[in-house]
Amino acid sequence: MPSEFALIDRHFARATPQAVLGPGDDCALLAPAPGMELAITTDMLVSGTHFFVETDPWQLGWKTLAVNVSDLAAMGAQPRWALLAGSLPAADEAWIAAFAEGFFACAGRYGVDLVGGDTTRGPLCLCVTAIGEVPAGGALRRDRARPGDDIWVSGRPGLAALGLAHLQQRTMLSGDLAETCINLLQQPLPRVELGLALRQRGLAQAAIDVSDGLLADLGHIVERSAVDAEVFVAQLPGLPDGADALLARQCQLAGGDDYELVFTARPDKRDALHALAEEVGLPLRRIGVISAAAGKGEVRLLDETGRTLPVDKMGFDHFGSNEAE
Amino acid sequence: MPSEFALIDRHFARATPQAVLGPGDDCALLAPAPGMELAITTDMLVSGTHFFVETDPWQLGWKTLAVNVSDLAAMGAQPRWALLAGSLPAADEAWIAAFAEGFFACAGRYGVDLVGGDTTRGPLCLCVTAIGEVPAGGALRRDRARPGDDIWVSGRPGLAALGLAHLQQRTMLSGDLAETCINLLQQPLPRVELGLALRQRGLAQAAIDVSDGLLADLGHIVERSAVDAEVFVAQLPGLPDGADALLARQCQLAGGDDYELVFTARPDKRDALHALAEEVGLPLRRIGVISAAAGKGEVRLLDETGRTLPVDKMGFDHFGSNEAE
Repeated sequence: MPSEFALIDRHFARATPQAVLGPGDDCALLAPAPGMELAITTDMLVSGTHFFVETDPWQLGWKTLAVNVSDLAAMGAQPRWALLAGSLPAADEAWIAAFAEGFFACAGRYGVDLVGGDTTRGPLCLCVTAIGEVPAGGALRRDRARPGDDIWVSGRPGLAALGLAHLQQRTMLSGDLAETCINLLQQPLPRVELGLALRQRGLAQAAIDVSDGLLADLGHIVERSAVDAEVFVAQLPGLPDGADALLARQCQLAGGDDYELVFTARPDKRDALHALAEEVGLPLRRIGVISAAAGKGEVRLLDETGRTLPVDKMGFDHFGSNEAE
Repeated sequence: MPSEFALIDRHFARATPQAVLGPGDDCALLAPAPGMELAITTDMLVSGTHFFVETDPWQLGWKTLAVNVSDLAAMGAQPRWALLAGSLPAADEAWIAAFAEGFFACAGRYGVDLVGGDTTRGPLCLCVTAIGEVPAGGALRRDRARPGDDIWVSGRPGLAALGLAHLQQRTMLSGDLAETCINLLQQPLPRVELGLALRQRGLAQAAIDVSDGLLADLGHIVERSAVDAEVFVAQLPGLPDGADALLARQCQLAGGDDYELVFTARPDKRDALHALAEEVGLPLRRIGVISAAAGKGEVRLLDETGRTLPVDKMGFDHFGSNEAE
């Protein structure tokens, strides 16, 4: 069995043109550009909690980085660097090689240099720290939603959760839809381009990525901003054909793992946002409004008649439920 | 059982005066000082591999951060920020509270703000990313050792490994020595002050912290610097009274977990280094010399007569051996 160091060198040592010093020393050295702030985030993925043990290692490598890049996207930051720490039950080189390929495919797609890491033996557990740059004072934060803001969401949240339901045999999707949904679950596409454009053009007030579920993540915005939100069922993205409508709605409102962006914007930005949607080839839907200056951080779901609907499952809580079980 | 978010808020949300934006958003925001580079490192600690499951949570909290701070010390960086990701088998609040106290005791001692993190359910696994600042071009790197450099080590490497041997009942230390060694194992003191002084005063050429073992870590310096090293047994720190001499020597040469610094320095720095040792209250010993410009990255251990001694266990490899088993 090759040693820890040899394994790392073989599969994870790639050029790091964006770093002063890459892997191989006690620390990596980074030189942020003048006037930039660093956006930094860390996420841990655990076998059995966040993914199935039999998950394809290439896709797992992609997703391990992608979920962190998505946090950078939600701040409007330009992804730059990442570190990867992993504990592995055995030094299975084929698995490691495929994981590395997926990881670096995502890194290449989003312009990230892997500058450091740590490998050890233990249960399968992966932890990425991702770092991006954003002009000082310019980051898209959760706490900047204001009464009167529109609420927008990108893409079609809920499809990844439908894919999970299909894999868990809780539902049976048609072939094409199943493939689409499973792909979104296993190889999510962080909305970096959208986040950058929202920030650069001053189009968004507050933003978050949908990792815990649409309503739950919107809940984080309203809580941090001390406002309330009203979401209109009639304005939500259409549900996919070929799926149970109730489940599809549940997944849309409470399914995690989509990595779409939810953001708020002043109403005078509607035209610019529709144009941006065309430009980046990604649907942007206006689904509600921020209400009440002295808000309690509540998200209300309203039907066509203005009646408040009960919302019983607001999202994915890692100690409250367990995705892969 | 309180939710993930409530648990985090209760025990890990502390003031972050060194951050633009601390925990609670998609990312933390950091504003590095102008002219500084960032030193960044990540380490993962896994139950059963790096620590015993029954390890005191306060000490584990301390050590989880300390091993990362030690990497900053080895670069001569000033610790500033950290992120903590953890997977826990259950939301045991007493354990989490004690862990947090130990973590923040270490953070306070070394001036670190905890700016972000992630908590999830799974086997006990902890991952810290630590970030420090160092003037551009000034970091102490592994690849800067030059022929003729003295080799120095701080403190008394090997005591932590002796403490582990005692806990594993592979040896029986006397009461005082056992306490000293176990304390060094469970609550290591990263040599930040030493690293800063070495860098600020231009005293060291190359540096590394002893996490894998003295000879193994020195091996990383000579490999990266393309030189060889000669270590003289007669110049090593004295072995402790009350321990088996052979085991103590083995621990000194190959024991991990000490987090002392090994560094190289030009011979004209000897007086300044002895003075620094007095100043920081930490022994600094000159234990060898860097040889051969066209080196193969070899570390040779020489006895009093100049004879090369066999070295069979060069350090701790996470896939080759297993500390806590």
